[in-house]
Parts: sequence; C-alpha cells; structure tokens
Amino acid sequence: MGNSFGRIFRISTFGESHGKGLGVVIDGCPAGLEIDEDFIWQEMQRRKPGQSKITTQRKEEDEFQILSGVFEGKSTGTPIGIVIMNTDQKSKDYSHIADKFRPSHADYTYFEKYGIRDYRGGGRSSARETAARVAAGAIAKMMLRHFGISVQAYVSQVGDLRLDKTYQELNLEHTEENIVRCPDGEMAEQMIAYIDEVRKSRDTVGGIVSCVAKGVPPGLGEPVFDRLHAEIGKAMLSINAVKGFEYGSGFEGVKMRGSDHNDAFYREGDLVKTKTNHSGGIQGGISNGQDIYFNVAFKPVATIMQDQESVNELGESVTVSGKGRHDPCVVPRAVPIVEAMCALVLADYLLISRTNKL
Amino acid sequence: MGNSFGRIFRISTFGESHGKGLGVVIDGCPAGLEIDEDFIWQEMQRRKPGQSKITTQRKEEDEFQILSGVFEGKSTGTPIGIVIMNTDQKSKDYSHIADKFRPSHADYTYFEKYGIRDYRGGGRSSARETAARVAAGAIAKMMLRHFGISVQAYVSQVGDLRLDKTYQELNLEHTEENIVRCPDGEMAEQMIAYIDEVRKSRDTVGGIVSCVAKGVPPGLGEPVFDRLHAEIGKAMLSINAVKGFEYGSGFEGVKMRGSDHNDAFYREGDLVKTKTNHSGGIQGGISNGQDIYFNVAFKPVATIMQDQESVNELGESVTVSGKGRHDPCVVPRAVPIVEAMCALVLADYLLISRTNKL
Amino acid sequence: MGNSFGRIFRISTFGESHGKGLGVVIDGCPAGLEIDEDFIWQEMQRRKPGQSKITTQRKEEDEFQILSGVFEGKSTGTPIGIVIMNTDQKSKDYSHIADKFRPSHADYTYFEKYGIRDYRGGGRSSARETAARVAAGAIAKMMLRHFGISVQAYVSQVGDLRLDKTYQELNLEHTEENIVRCPDGEMAEQMIAYIDEVRKSRDTVGGIVSCVAKGVPPGLGEPVFDRLHAEIGKAMLSINAVKGFEYGSGFEGVKMRGSDHNDAFYREGDLVKTKTNHSGGIQGGISNGQDIYFNVAFKPVATIMQDQESVNELGESVTVSGKGRHDPCVVPRAVPIVEAMCALVLADYLLISRTNKL
Amino acid sequence: MGNSFGRIFRISTFGESHGKGLGVVIDGCPAGLEIDEDFIWQEMQRRKPGQSKITTQRKEEDEFQILSGVFEGKSTGTPIGIVIMNTDQKSKDYSHIADKFRPSHADYTYFEKYGIRDYRGGGRSSARETAARVAAGAIAKMMLRHFGISVQAYVSQVGDLRLDKTYQELNLEHTEENIVRCPDGEMAEQMIAYIDEVRKSRDTVGGIVSCVAKGVPPGLGEPVFDRLHAEIGKAMLSINAVKGFEYGSGFEGVKMRGSDHNDAFYREGDLVKTKTNHSGGIQGGISNGQDIYFNVAFKPVATIMQDQESVNELGESVTVSGKGRHDPCVVPRAVPIVEAMCALVLADYLLISRTNKL
Repeated sequence: MGNSFGRIFRISTFGESHGKGLGVVIDGCPAGLEIDEDFIWQEMQRRKPGQSKITTQRKEEDEFQILSGVFEGKSTGTPIGIVIMNTDQKSKDYSHIADKFRPSHADYTYFEKYGIRDYRGGGRSSARETAARVAAGAIAKMMLRHFGISVQAYVSQVGDLRLDKTYQELNLEHTEENIVRCPDGEMAEQMIAYIDEVRKSRDTVGGIVSCVAKGVPPGLGEPVFDRLHAEIGKAMLSINAVKGFEYGSGFEGVKMRGSDHNDAFYREGDLVKTKTNHSGGIQGGISNGQDIYFNVAFKPVATIMQDQESVNELGESVTVSGKGRHDPCVVPRAVPIVEAMCALVLADYLLISRTNKL
Repeated sequence: MGNSFGRIFRISTFGESHGKGLGVVIDGCPAGLEIDEDFIWQEMQRRKPGQSKITTQRKEEDEFQILSGVFEGKSTGTPIGIVIMNTDQKSKDYSHIADKFRPSHADYTYFEKYGIRDYRGGGRSSARETAARVAAGAIAKMMLRHFGISVQAYVSQVGDLRLDKTYQELNLEHTEENIVRCPDGEMAEQMIAYIDEVRKSRDTVGGIVSCVAKGVPPGLGEPVFDRLHAEIGKAMLSINAVKGFEYGSGFEGVKMRGSDHNDAFYREGDLVKTKTNHSGGIQGGISNGQDIYFNVAFKPVATIMQDQESVNELGESVTVSGKGRHDPCVVPRAVPIVEAMCALVLADYLLISRTNKL
Repeated sequence: MGNSFGRIFRISTFGESHGKGLGVVIDGCPAGLEIDEDFIWQEMQRRKPGQSKITTQRKEEDEFQILSGVFEGKSTGTPIGIVIMNTDQKSKDYSHIADKFRPSHADYTYFEKYGIRDYRGGGRSSARETAARVAAGAIAKMMLRHFGISVQAYVSQVGDLRLDKTYQELNLEHTEENIVRCPDGEMAEQMIAYIDEVRKSRDTVGGIVSCVAKGVPPGLGEPVFDRLHAEIGKAMLSINAVKGFEYGSGFEGVKMRGSDHNDAFYREGDLVKTKTNHSGGIQGGISNGQDIYFNVAFKPVATIMQDQESVNELGESVTVSGKGRHDPCVVPRAVPIVEAMCALVLADYLLISRTNKL
Repeated sequence: MGNSFGRIFRISTFGESHGKGLGVVIDGCPAGLEIDEDFIWQEMQRRKPGQSKITTQRKEEDEFQILSGVFEGKSTGTPIGIVIMNTDQKSKDYSHIADKFRPSHADYTYFEKYGIRDYRGGGRSSARETAARVAAGAIAKMMLRHFGISVQAYVSQVGDLRLDKTYQELNLEHTEENIVRCPDGEMAEQMIAYIDEVRKSRDTVGGIVSCVAKGVPPGLGEPVFDRLHAEIGKAMLSINAVKGFEYGSGFEGVKMRGSDHNDAFYREGDLVKTKTNHSGGIQGGISNGQDIYFNVAFKPVATIMQDQESVNELGESVTVSGKGRHDPCVVPRAVPIVEAMCALVLADYLLISRTNKL
C-alpha cells in the first residue's frame, strides 16, 4: 500500500533505484489534453542527477516512454503509463552495505517492516523514485497551464543561509539561471559556495524550498479532512528527506495577534481580494483566489562520505563507510519535485471541485 | 467529499456548529476492544468550550451517544456510530453576519465553493466539528493503549512565549495540571497571563502544540506516499487554524550537517536503538521504534472582538463587528484534538502493517 | 471496513437491528439540491416492515432525523447525517438464539470473523440496515430527478411465478398499486396468493426484482474495473439475500448469436440510438443513452417458522426454532432498496463523469 | 478513474490494444512471497490469442517483464510493476473503422465520454487489457496457494450446450485437456464442434464460465457493502463481455423454499460444516469455509464477420464490415481471466481479514 496519490487525477508509482525500471500510471487525467513530451523531458532534466557540481555526479539518463493513454498527441482519458528503464542497474557492488543499516536511512525500517529489502542504492526508498513523480507532475502542470495556473518553486534557504525576501520581492524567472535554483543571484552564489564547502568536508546540509501557485481559482479544497493545504502538506511530506511544511504565515504566524494576522477583504473590479495574505491563499481549507505559498524543510542528506557507527541485521556493531556519488544538499534538485507534487494536488482538486455544486 | 479519514480504521464525520447535531462513524475498529465510555467523556471534556477563563465561555454540553458497533461493552467490528446533539442550536441570532464574509474565516471560500453556506456559527467550518474527532480519537487511544502505545500533547508556545525544553526534559504528567496545558508550571503561568492580557485587548494570539507518541513499534508507515509522518502531517493540517507541521529536527534541522543530524544505531539488549533521535522516530516514512515527536503551529483565532473591514456577498464594503464568546488562543483546547488525530493515524497504520508480510 | 459505498457521492452506514439506532452519512452530495423530507419519508414507508399481510408484521417506525448538511431546505455540500433511532430495542428476548448459529444466516460467519457478535435480531447483518440505504437513496433520486433520470423497480418473479413481459410491455405506474409490487395486476394476484400460501406453510420463497433506469445520458461508467454495470452489480449483490445479477440480455444472452445480439446504431434527430437493446444501455462499461435494465435474484428468506438442525458456538448439535415475525418473501420490500442502490450508483457516476474531459 | 482494483492487494492497469505497451502495478503484495515467473508465463499462455482453432488466430506474444518489487526471487512489499510491450502495434490499418461506431462495441460510448478515442483495435476497451489482469492474478494465485487456497474455472455452457453437472460431479483436473476448457470430455467435443460451426458461419456465440474456490477460510468479506460475493461479482462484471453473475444457488435458487434452501450446520471433527451448500460458501457476505462457486455469463463477441448497419461520428448511416481475426466464442480464453479476478479478490480480502480482530 501507499504507492498511489490523488483521488480523481491519481498516480501510482513503482520501481527501485537499481531494479530494471520504474514508472508511473496516471489514472484520471482528463481527455483532450495536449501532451508535450519535450516538456516532460525538460522537467526530468531539472531533477536528474549530475546536472551541476553541487549535485551528485551520478549519471542517470532518465529516458522515459509513454506506453499508453495518449493518442495523436492528446490524452484519451485512459490511464497514461510511463516507464523509465534503469540502464546501469547491474553495474554496482552493494555488498558493503547489504546487511548494514545506514544511519538515518530507511534500511532498518524497511527491514523491520518487510523482513526483506532491496539494498541496492536504497531500493524503493531511494530518491530515484521521484523521477516518476516529476514525469506525472509535468502532465499535471500542462493541465494547470490550460486553466491559467502556474506553480513555481525555488530554494530559499541552505543551512543557515536564508533568503530574507518574500516571493513577491523576487523575480522567479531567475530561478533557473543558477545551479542552486535561488532566484536571488547574490544569495545563490553564497549558497553554491557553501554547498561546495560542505561537499569538500565530506558532509551534507539541509535547506528549504519555497513554492508559490498563482491563478488558482477560489473553491479548491475538500474540508474537513482533505483541506487543500492538508493535501499539499501531505504531498510535500511524502518527498524524501522532508521534515516540515508550513503555508501562509506558517510557524512565524503563531506569534502574531489576530488583528494583525487577519486578511481584510476588499473588492477590485469584479474580484474579491484580500489586502494581506497571511492565509496563504487558503481559508478553511479552500482556496480563496489569492496566491498559495508554502515552505518545505529538507534535512541534510543522510549519506555522508564519513565513517559512521551502526549495527547490521544481526544486531552487531559495524562501521558504515560513505561511498559513491551523492548530493551534498538535496534542495536544488528538490525544486522540480516540489512543483510536481503541488501540481498533482491542484490538478486533482480542480477536477474534484467540478462536483461541488448541483 | 473530504469528510472521511483513514483507510482501515476510518472515520467519517458530519455536522455543523448550529445544526441539529454532529457525529462520527468509525468503520474498521477491530472487534473485541473494550469501550470505556467514561474515557470518551473525559477526552471530550478536555476539548469542550467553557472549561477555563482562557477559553471561550460558550457552553456546549457535548453529550454523546454510541448508537452502534458496541455490544456488552466491546466493539463488535461493525461501524461505531456516535452522535452529539446540539442542544441550543436555535438560540442564536446570526443575521449580523449572514451575508458578510468575516476576515480569515471560511465564509468567503465556502460561499465560492458551494454557492450556499450555513452561516450560523461558521457551519461546517466551525471547530465544533472537532468534537467528533475527539470522540473517535478516544477509541483509537483505547486501542493503542492495548498495544502499549501512548500519545501525549502539550502546549509549547503561545505567541512569543516559547518553552525551550524538549519533551524529554519535561514531565508530561503535569500537562493537565494547569489550564493552558503546558507541563512546565512556570511557563504555564506566563502563558496564562499573556492569553488573559490578549483577551482583555479584545484580540487573539497563536501558539504551538507539541506531541509525542511512545511505544510505537517499528514498521508503521506506507511509503512512498503514505509515509507515517506524511499522514500525521495531513491529520494535523486538517485541524482548524493549523498553519504548519514539523517532526523530529523539523525546520531547525535544515541548518544541521548530516554528520550531526544522522542518528547512529546501537544495540541495547534485543533492541536496536538510535543514540540521537533527529529522525523523530520515523525513517524513510516508517516508524523505527523510537519516540515520534512533532510540532503543530496554530494561527491566532480569526474571530476578534474588534471592528474589521470586509465585503458582503454582493461585494459591497461592510464592517464586521466581533460578537459572542470566542477563544483568545486556541492551543489549550487543541491539545486533545492533536492527540486524537495522531491516535487515529497510528491505529490505522498499526492495522495496515499486519498486511505487510506474507 | 466495508460500510461505505461510492466515490464522490459516498455513503457510510452504521447500526444494528436492535442497537440504539442506525444511520447514514452522505458525503459529496452536491450543494444546492432541494431536499424533500416528505419524499424520503415515503421511500422509507415503501421499505418498512408491517405494510401488508405478505410482509413481516413487525413494527418499525423508521422515524428519521436529518442532523446536518441541509440548510434552509437545500443541501450545502457538507455531509448529510441522518439517524433513525430504534424505538423498541430492549423489548425482545433473543436468549434462545444467543449462542446458536441459525442456518443460512450470518451468525456463524460473523462469529468466525469477529469472535463476537450482536445476536439480537441479526445485529448488523439484519436487513434493518437497508433503512439507511433507502434514506440515502431517496436523496440520490432527488438529484437524478433534477437531471431527468428516473429509476423504477418492480417484482418480476416469485418462486416459479415469472412475469413473461419485458419492462416495455408493462406500465410501471401500476407497480405501487398492489402489495407485491408487480405492475401486472393479474400476476400480482397470483404472486400474493402464492406468498400467502408459503407463509401459512411456515416457509419462505425467493424472487426476482427487475429495475429500469431511464434518461441516463451517455458517458457514465469508469472502465476498466469500475464499469457502470459492475458497480451496479456490486450495489445489488451488497443487498441482503441477493444471489445473482444480470443486465441487458443477461444469462439468456449467452445462447444468442452475435448477429442477433448486436444492437444496430441509427440516428433519430440529433440522437444516436440502437434498434435493439440487448446491451442494456451499457457498452464497454459506459452508458450509451438507452434504457438501463437489470434483474436481481433474491433467495428465500433464511428465517422459517420450522425447527432446523444446527450447531452452537461450542460446536454442539442444537435445534433452532423459528420465532418472531418475518417476511415469507423479501422481494416486495426489496423494490425500494434496489431502486435506492441503483440511484446511488448513478448519482455517483454522474458526478464523476464531469471530470472526464478537459 | 476506474483502472484500479482492490484495497490492500491493489492493482492498477494501463494500456491499449495497439499502443506501445500495457501493464500493471501491484501495490500491497505482502513481502516474502516467492515469485515464480514461469507460472506467470503459463497463465498468460492460457489467455493469449492464437492458441487453438476455436480462438482468434491473432498472434500476441505477451512477453512480460517484471520491473520492480521482486528481489532475489521474492516479493519485497514494494509495488510490483509489470510491462508487456506490444510488438506489432504499427502493423494494422484501422482506417476503415476510424470514425465508425461498431455495433455493441465501446466505440460510441468512449467517444461520447471522452470526446476522443484510440480506435486501433478497440483501444482501451479491447480484451487485450486482460493480459495485465492475468499477470497480476498469477501472483495472487501464488499467494493463495501459500495459504492452501485454489481457484479453478471451466467452461460450463456454450450457446445452448449446457453442462448439466455440478462442479462436484466433475474432475476439474481435465479442464486443460481440451481447447474449450470444459472438464467433461464428451461435452467438450460438442462445444468445440459447435464453436467451429459458428465460426464458419462468420458469427459468434456466448457462454458461461463456472468457477470454484476451495480452501477459503471462514471470515473473508467486509459487509455491508463489500460483501465477499459483491466484490467477486464486481470483479467478474468488470471483464469484457460479461452480462451476469450468480453464486451458490443463484437465479435458480429463487424458486426454492427456505426449508430446502437453508444449509444445515453440523460438526465434523473440529470443523463446522454445512450439509448442503446453496449459500455458495458465503453467508451474510462472509466466507463460511465451504467451497465458493459461481457462474459468469458472457455475451456473444460483438465482432462478427458480417456487414452491419451503424452510424459514424457525424451521425451518418454507414456499413461496418467484419475484418481481422477474432474469437467466435470468448469463454475458452476467459477461463484464466475469471480465475485471475477471483484470486485477486480473495488475496485482497484475506489480507483485510487480518485487521478484523483486536
């Protein structure tokens, strides 16, 4: 269980890091959507390893194939099956960790849960799995674009380096101009230098990805449990290494008084708007037409190039040594994943909202 | 849609603030559980309004009735239906807000979504709905207790007043000894005084509820999407007024290096444990047997006793005046709600985990 | 598990035969539907016991209360909670069957499944549970009526007495004119006489309910698994005592040649129609705009007024004696239940179909 | 929507007849199951076209690949992704039916529902989709075998030729010994001759597949809606060309008296058994430990080698001519599909039943 996400626009993913391949089935994509394979490819390029000096140098080609659900360039309403074959799955030697539990990885918990685990490269718990999410998210983005909705994420913090500007003060068009995906050029340079330093010290560091969705119409969200931000929050927390989620005023908002925090309504032309947006575009779990924005906290990557104490499957004390090519900081590559998961929620909830009124 | 939560141990709630009644159907509670109605009653007392000078003075009796699913004191495996009648639903006059959108409430979004809304006391968006959650959560807690699992929440922040102690440094037995539900007596006094001051200024303030679950066995959680913390996060974000969720090292963890953040495994007797617990008891989305702990951020209550600018259903500028009896700070009463939702997730995932192995 | 039905228009029922009460939560009913409580009451009258000499003489008042989800006579889009209190739940003595397994009842299987059972009147397995379905179905019917869709069922067979007319040859307006609910007056008389004879012999007999849905637009049904007829079939098979389901040409159709069975398309005005309708209004699992019709087979009621051999919870041989007031034939009262379940499926699928196209 | 089946042991299928490929994701298969790829291959051979003179002569190789979820020969608890590439998807010319609606096919309904359709070989509505079900069903069968449960189907009727023996009077080991898959050799010969005659007359005919599951423990089934037979019924009705389902005494049972129909309990050693089994192994929607048996009615295949009247997408009258290689009768190849779907339901419900008791 647990490998499907969404209600109407629903994805089911499969695949391990070093198995034959991975993929996703998208059920419920409405018929008639133009499917731009180049766009999917671009999105996957943004996620894939080896794209810069501050990401892992591992190579994964991420060639995908759409097997079904698209005919003459358009979605047909039937499930869209996408597979991404693993090209080098046999090349690695994982015997050095086969029976060891790497600290803060999922080795121990998978073993306890299932009594068996595919230890090659983390198996199912590997972030490689997010390739399938990005492919599906690209299709969700195409659908959202059709309805005038955009989703843009960027890196707002790396370690202690925090970008003290709101998304309104930034030009998000600059996000892709640097390898850390921070739209503020100056801060980006600092972040890159910092990650590089961390990498050289054979260590890793965490960070925050911020995201904003614009053009979302009022009415999306299904209280009381499936509130829009609850589903977005779950989507974010389902991404590897995520430790926290906040939207609108978030954790800082707890310090405010209601009189400051409340967003006054006013009218502009035919639209009802709010003067401030501490609500983050969502009130009572339903979008109100204002921008939706949120932050996602990522822990430092668990794989470090250092010796660590641990135990093995027999409970014996062992040393785990860092090996291979890994990300010193996950947030640059997490940007497209955050966007993908947000897009999937919005696409799903947009479709559901069609059933709200008689 | 959106009024059910859980997969196996699944609840469906219904009811508005000022309708005839509210309730919950619990489907999937395993047979043979002793149902202690007194315990349900106690839990509901912890949530109900009017319990102290820092909560709303509104009276709700919250008398519940179990209509089904329990026979001779034990659950039978069939759905447990619980209803809570609203005793004073006709007494109020809500005409002053009938067509006005209160700032940062769900009035506008419900109206946009459904084209109609029950404006009496917030209708479905009222926190009154959480009474049903607490009743169901009490049953989940009984089940967890049977398996040696406890869930305890407490207030760790009100406005700027932050309790700078970890849950290990606190004696959570003291939580219920004061009206703000902070286990540190000194801090509790400060918080109470502060909330009282805020209340007198006809304003409101936010806060944080922290929660810890002990005794959770390894193996709970269903990656990749239904990770244990993703589901707990969604559960928390589905509670009224919640703006953020973090578990383990949370947002602070992003500043750490991997070498500090990683939790080294070691063996103690037959058990595998971790020396630190930045993981918050969850690795790869699956419980690892250590304590699960998390924080939940609540915004300041939107209802303030002050005049505010807004618009009405026609889009005209109007003034909304504060009226009635409302909480100046929601966190003291949110403590049992956080526990209830956490217990519901754990009960559900505990049952699901029985299907993981052959 | 298992007490919810539907995806968007989704019901969850609860309640035992002799507990405090039963009920249903309807989540996903679109907002703005006028809720006619008199109509719900009428539908429940059609199902309730004691309505004629050929049904059980047991009295159940079936007074229902709508607790939520309706405001000023209209659905609000929030869950509609309905409860039906059991007024005489304490009056009976069930000690004579408390530990005995009645033949062809659910006593043994509930006991094996749950290790505990509410033996009073069959508990959850009692057909009393269908009262909640009929209440929910009445609301689904109101929604369908708004879109010009009707659902009408009738008795077409009792024991060997089979009505050899198709629904087109009958005037279904006559169905409610007799107590067996057969629209053919002559056959109705025979059926009534036969049931009465069976009743006098302290026995029971089975029958068939036929049903037709008119005005269903093309496009309802979600292949490949959630085909429209598969969901209707499941709905019917979920009703107590049902042993079979067939639609369109059904079991007789297997004898036909394709050249006779195929329904030729033709055009009438703006509409595409079929000359015959062996498909039963559904092709490839999707409605084609023609009438949907199907048959539902009900076994003879298991409770007979005779002594029967059986075993008790200890596995000892016992005699089970018939007692109480029971239906000699279930089909007359099953008519509104079949309609209710069909209406629930159609309402659900109508809403889902709004998400099929971009 | 609609392309997933099951709750815990859950499959999601994708793929069109003439797209690049098809496949299935199995989520929730418990860890530790030995996966025998040869057995999957054998099951797929039973379904594939071109296996005898009475099935279509079309060649499909049905080479499958397991991409994930299996490690060192065992299931790991993570999703099992299986793909089956279509090797000859570009070879055919479908322009002669591209805009025509074939009678009693899904052409018209898909077009109405989605506004677009992949007309090549029926697209998603093609029975080719069942290849994915058989692959998944083979894995479900392996799991059932581990628990001593078997599922065996056979052909019991073709056109008017009806096998008047119960499954107890037959030796089901003979089923695979002839090409029509009827365990009675004499009847098999008649059926084969009849199908051959129908084929020569360029026509098609329907039939019935019967199925029996042995070794199912008591306790499977989730009333009130997810009764075991309701889910099996839905599974069967989701197979292409199915028009009816009955279990136990079925449609014939309606003619019986309760005193004859009731299955008397008795004890044999430690087991509670029933003297007769009109219940078909299921009482109150829950298995009782006796054999589960049921019948599935298949209509005559819609594709006939004759000219038929119809309309096209513009509503114009057209003639549809039969072309290509198709089955004159679907039931011989439906046998493994019926088994697969039954096995999937039983595997799912077996896992769910682990959550019934405390």
